[in-house]
Amino acid sequence: MELWFTELQKPGMKISCKVLQTLHREQTPFQEIVLLDTVQFGRMLVLDGAVQVTLLDEFVYHEMLAHVPLHAHPAPKDVLIIGGGDGGTAREVLRHTELESVTLVEIDRRVVDVCRRFLPELSCSYDNPKLQVHFEDGVEYVKNKKACYDVILVDSPDPVGQAARLFSAEFYRAIFEALRPDGIFAAQTESPFVDAELIGRVYRDANRVFPITKLYQAVVPTYPTALWTFTVGSKRYDPETCLRKPLFEDDLRYYNADLHQASFKLPNFVKKLLR
Amino acid sequence: MELWFTELQKPGMKISCKVLQTLHREQTPFQEIVLLDTVQFGRMLVLDGAVQVTLLDEFVYHEMLAHVPLHAHPAPKDVLIIGGGDGGTAREVLRHTELESVTLVEIDRRVVDVCRRFLPELSCSYDNPKLQVHFEDGVEYVKNKKACYDVILVDSPDPVGQAARLFSAEFYRAIFEALRPDGIFAAQTESPFVDAELIGRVYRDANRVFPITKLYQAVVPTYPTALWTFTVGSKRYDPETCLRKPLFEDDLRYYNADLHQASFKLPNFVKKLLR
Repeated sequence: MELWFTELQKPGMKISCKVLQTLHREQTPFQEIVLLDTVQFGRMLVLDGAVQVTLLDEFVYHEMLAHVPLHAHPAPKDVLIIGGGDGGTAREVLRHTELESVTLVEIDRRVVDVCRRFLPELSCSYDNPKLQVHFEDGVEYVKNKKACYDVILVDSPDPVGQAARLFSAEFYRAIFEALRPDGIFAAQTESPFVDAELIGRVYRDANRVFPITKLYQAVVPTYPTALWTFTVGSKRYDPETCLRKPLFEDDLRYYNADLHQASFKLPNFVKKLLR
Repeated sequence: MELWFTELQKPGMKISCKVLQTLHREQTPFQEIVLLDTVQFGRMLVLDGAVQVTLLDEFVYHEMLAHVPLHAHPAPKDVLIIGGGDGGTAREVLRHTELESVTLVEIDRRVVDVCRRFLPELSCSYDNPKLQVHFEDGVEYVKNKKACYDVILVDSPDPVGQAARLFSAEFYRAIFEALRPDGIFAAQTESPFVDAELIGRVYRDANRVFPITKLYQAVVPTYPTALWTFTVGSKRYDPETCLRKPLFEDDLRYYNADLHQASFKLPNFVKKLLR
């Protein structure tokens, strides 16, 4: 027997992965959590039928979400991660040993539990004493914070259902308030091939709040079309400028200082979305 | 009824596209040619079950294969395209109005016929008087040429069956001989996520022949993992340097001078393949 998991990524477009084993499956109050072991991608976390991370390509997403804003800030001390219960973004953030605190706000405690059990490659930082985890709604959490963070990372699922609030102008204003006067935020913002309208809207919304707003890109094979964007808003520093070579560059599989700057050089059709 | 086309891209990994209509299907002496109209990707050329071009993303592949080497050469006059029967690469090459001749060598005349009928967006340059088309084996064609071309582009299918010869050290030596003393060649060379060994071998083979060998990347969603590489060998000029801003940049959807240089900034895991 062959077992295949298929995700309908967009109408008329599917990706399928051959499954060696279903390691875990449960319905929480928030979503269906599935953990698969696959032939080509290794272990894979699937939430409500959509691939979130796979061992083949998670490093691209997590390194690029974390290290671009962190290397654009001259001296980050306190970082907030909204979402990211799998732990991959926290793992990358905590490579920056100069940080004093990292706060992770994940709505679904079971995502953390399942990833701690089945994805130790991602969840390896949960015992780091600098990391505080709050199980609550990220939108609500950030509302009450004023000038507490140097860097805020939005590690969200697709803008479907409740997660759509993580792509709203109101949320970006709250993030602005939660950042210190020289703070930077970055968020994953989907694919220009199939989410063009969303990218344009998010960019314009963020640009109304932040003095400097830019888009950068990376390639995550298991996400729809693989061309993935991150929107970054900054109060003072140009996020395109990498201020220091990573001390831990040998441990990274994707990010480097040259790629930092190169990732902001966008194809013409993506630049047009930002007009 | 729903009709879906599925490509087994690698063991354990499939992409599926919902089909509106099968426009053409035939078996030639060389391969099976299928032309589909799909929901998400528009019209699509499939050879022996593998997606070659779709209207959604062909511009990425063709612009990057053509314009990177052509903008790295100060004054190209004569260009050879090996493969590329769909016409997309010739379309991009012929934007360079300074060229005197473009020669396209395609083994299967029926690919050209089918694309002229169903993919006018790609095959629009076949009536250009600067374009000469030869229906013969590209490997044999290039063997007899000495110092005739400024730029040679290898627009090949995957290295399966006969096409494997287009990825051989012997072929790169023949290309070197066919180029003028300051010539440049570029070839599509698959994905670092799933064809790592091939990329390393091709790079080392080309590097034994050409004084300057580099790799650059682009994102083609319908190719396996979407992260696509091109290997470029050059006798004199650094292919990473874009010598002039394209006069026709407004007509391009992907390539621009900034992206030219950025596309050579590789992720760490890709750089490692070239050691």
